[in-house]
Amino acid sequence: MYSFESKLRVRYYETDKMGIVHHSNYVRYYEYARTEMMMYLGLSYGTMEKEGVIMPVISVSSKYIKPAYYEDELVVRVRLNDLPTAKMYFFYEIFNQHEELINTGETILSFSNASTNRPCRPPQRLIDILKKII
Amino acid sequence: MYSFESKLRVRYYETDKMGIVHHSNYVRYYEYARTEMMMYLGLSYGTMEKEGVIMPVISVSSKYIKPAYYEDELVVRVRLNDLPTAKMYFFYEIFNQHEELINTGETILSFSNASTNRPCRPPQRLIDILKKII
Amino acid sequence: MYSFESKLRVRYYETDKMGIVHHSNYVRYYEYARTEMMMYLGLSYGTMEKEGVIMPVISVSSKYIKPAYYEDELVVRVRLNDLPTAKMYFFYEIFNQHEELINTGETILSFSNASTNRPCRPPQRLIDILKKII
Amino acid sequence: MYSFESKLRVRYYETDKMGIVHHSNYVRYYEYARTEMMMYLGLSYGTMEKEGVIMPVISVSSKYIKPAYYEDELVVRVRLNDLPTAKMYFFYEIFNQHEELINTGETILSFSNASTNRPCRPPQRLIDILKKII
Repeated sequence: MYSFESKLRVRYYETDKMGIVHHSNYVRYYEYARTEMMMYLGLSYGTMEKEGVIMPVISVSSKYIKPAYYEDELVVRVRLNDLPTAKMYFFYEIFNQHEELINTGETILSFSNASTNRPCRPPQRLIDILKKII
Repeated sequence: MYSFESKLRVRYYETDKMGIVHHSNYVRYYEYARTEMMMYLGLSYGTMEKEGVIMPVISVSSKYIKPAYYEDELVVRVRLNDLPTAKMYFFYEIFNQHEELINTGETILSFSNASTNRPCRPPQRLIDILKKII
Repeated sequence: MYSFESKLRVRYYETDKMGIVHHSNYVRYYEYARTEMMMYLGLSYGTMEKEGVIMPVISVSSKYIKPAYYEDELVVRVRLNDLPTAKMYFFYEIFNQHEELINTGETILSFSNASTNRPCRPPQRLIDILKKII
Repeated sequence: MYSFESKLRVRYYETDKMGIVHHSNYVRYYEYARTEMMMYLGLSYGTMEKEGVIMPVISVSSKYIKPAYYEDELVVRVRLNDLPTAKMYFFYEIFNQHEELINTGETILSFSNASTNRPCRPPQRLIDILKKII
């Protein structure tokens, strides 16, 4: 198991007329958090894509527990339970500045060759990095 | 069971550097489709909110089967299986112009009093409308 | 002079906590309207990009006259005054369902070769189409 | 004259199929930067709105000089030249991690009473803060 935390502040344009963060943005917060994690681990999405591997999203799910508000300071915790195979599972928990759990989620990503768009194995470099920490 | 179909064309800003529709937009397509359906049925979100009931999203899930591309003409089918109780379940299937199923999803919404933000029963008008069609 | 009108309905996620359409979305409405116009004229952005020409945006400006609200039915009028040279100018006026002018704007786009990213001339097909109508 | 710099990293969902940051996001970067500045100065948007004053955007303009790419680390410099009167002018310059100027912009905001939506004077607290630094 490995987990990583990123911080972000809710932006004005992310709110909606209900006065809270629009629910679609949590999917974007997940992406933000997992890309920050990958960058921290030394193999950023950007690098992976330049090296020819893209990671399309296969599924997303999200549970909304409490609303988030403009200017809230959120902590997004990403958790990896297992090494990736054909798929890579990411689990999320989002907390507000009062340390309340406001959202949980999960995304499954796959690996594809950037030129052929066909499924491929996860990059060896990624496996090597994750083996040390999971 | 009741189902309703809305059309939408993929907009440029909805694409990402992978050249496909960014996965977060499907959650927005679901919202678009269910609000078009509600409007068609004669009780729009806007009206419901003016009458004091908001519908916060409790959970979302989405499965990505095939990518969507810029200028694709998508059909979003929303399905209701049951009358709402404290919660209202919406199911989605998205098809592209080649009639390929590219995405399926589900959202659960609840009902809250717009001034107190406390859970409330679904508006009677909504129940009356849905009773005739489901 | 040539002008073209597109309709769109304000989506929930486009609103912000002020209860109105977030100002950044007008830039997206402009894009929506000019791509609908190009598609109507027979040379869509998508086709142009497949044929090797992209149109990066050089500048945008927007004046906000009245707010737009959720579920408003907006008409976006795009106007072309001149044939494109190295640049193409688009002018916009947005009206709500009460025929009130709520926004005006302008965007300037250029033409680039999609593989080299270097400036190029507008496609001859585009010039031919526009010569007939402007 | 007063200027303030905020940093932000380009997020994946902000890119488009041209492989660069979609032009509409710069308007959001401006907002991000001016709200960070206001928060730093001790009178956040959130607080101002709770105290009854909202700041609708009157106009935006943006010039795109060079593209920004996924994972770029951008610096957004906001500049104030004068004390606000009925309007408040913000000027922006965006730099990438190579210290290249990639975008300049300007937004004009006004002040309105949050309950009546009518124009009002800027909050005295804001004037007091800005008098010390401009």
